[in-house]
Amino acid sequence: MTEKLVLHEYSASGNCYKVRLTAALLGLALERREYDILKGETRTPTFLAEVNPNGRIPVLQIGHRFIPESNAACFYLADGSNLIPEARFDRADMLRWMFFEQYNHEPNIATMRFWLAYVGEERLTEAQRAQMPSKRAAGEAALKLMDEHLADRRFFVGDSLSLADIALYAYTHVAEEGGFALSDFANVREWMERVAQLPGHVAMES
Amino acid sequence: MTEKLVLHEYSASGNCYKVRLTAALLGLALERREYDILKGETRTPTFLAEVNPNGRIPVLQIGHRFIPESNAACFYLADGSNLIPEARFDRADMLRWMFFEQYNHEPNIATMRFWLAYVGEERLTEAQRAQMPSKRAAGEAALKLMDEHLADRRFFVGDSLSLADIALYAYTHVAEEGGFALSDFANVREWMERVAQLPGHVAMES
Repeated sequence: MTEKLVLHEYSASGNCYKVRLTAALLGLALERREYDILKGETRTPTFLAEVNPNGRIPVLQIGHRFIPESNAACFYLADGSNLIPEARFDRADMLRWMFFEQYNHEPNIATMRFWLAYVGEERLTEAQRAQMPSKRAAGEAALKLMDEHLADRRFFVGDSLSLADIALYAYTHVAEEGGFALSDFANVREWMERVAQLPGHVAMES
Repeated sequence: MTEKLVLHEYSASGNCYKVRLTAALLGLALERREYDILKGETRTPTFLAEVNPNGRIPVLQIGHRFIPESNAACFYLADGSNLIPEARFDRADMLRWMFFEQYNHEPNIATMRFWLAYVGEERLTEAQRAQMPSKRAAGEAALKLMDEHLADRRFFVGDSLSLADIALYAYTHVAEEGGFALSDFANVREWMERVAQLPGHVAMES
């Protein structure tokens, strides 16, 4: 990797942490640029024009080019490494869990964490408050599905760590900040411990 | 591809159509199995145990193994073909648009279409009705972002068709069924025409 890698991020975001964890496990250096999403720093005209027209972080900058979307940024970093399985089925199965993460896990577990731990329940709109019961139920269903999948597996795909684990670990390991209890999910807790013990692992706030 | 390919689907679903369109463009035969999601046929104990514990379609069956998540199923079919760019940046950029589709596009545009054209507005719950204004605004923002990206491009990534186009085409070309007007998005309409003209293209209800 000869071009400089810059991560445009909000460091408390699990989506940004995925990219940092992937880089750390691969031994890649990332320059970091912080934006305060609570102050709208990713919605400025400059950010929209130069970094991401979608107004979101993380964005991985590679030289003068940009990859938004956390899981796509992780894929860029890991392409050609052992974090992406070589077998065709396993590669697609890894993406299956990464799409599951963005569709069924993040919009529920990460959003609840953001609302409760960062925005503050008292500052939520009525419309947000009305969505909390369904987000709580859907987040619990996602954790249950993960727990059942992990009943006889060490990692999500095949027999070793892949980007699927990194994508799912990011918000699962802080799910309690969103009011989700992990006590019922023993397989998830053991898997989180395995991920935390990996050589090169970095913690979320690093 | 020596193992038999079976698509577990609901044929009116754009997510299922993505997999059929990918297979058609690649000249691959798919056996199709239909489930009525309005009757809960993907939430039966048998479906959950044997096809997808997440209770959703599409699921691509390859021999005796299963890939849920539409975009992962498309990736499996297209792996090694020219629908997935060879260049590392472009491959990640393709995934960027596929994750954008599942996070910013489908939950708004496909959900509005499902609610209005399949469930029926009069049968929506109060909580669903309360989400309609934000889903409409977010869907329009996704279409606007696509339109701006296509201002000087024929396809979403690089200079040729990729899975990014297929993923975004599926629900964009029926967005009007969800109440989204495409008249303001001339670049999107021209791009849709290009996709519709591709050799091997199949229509949604086929």
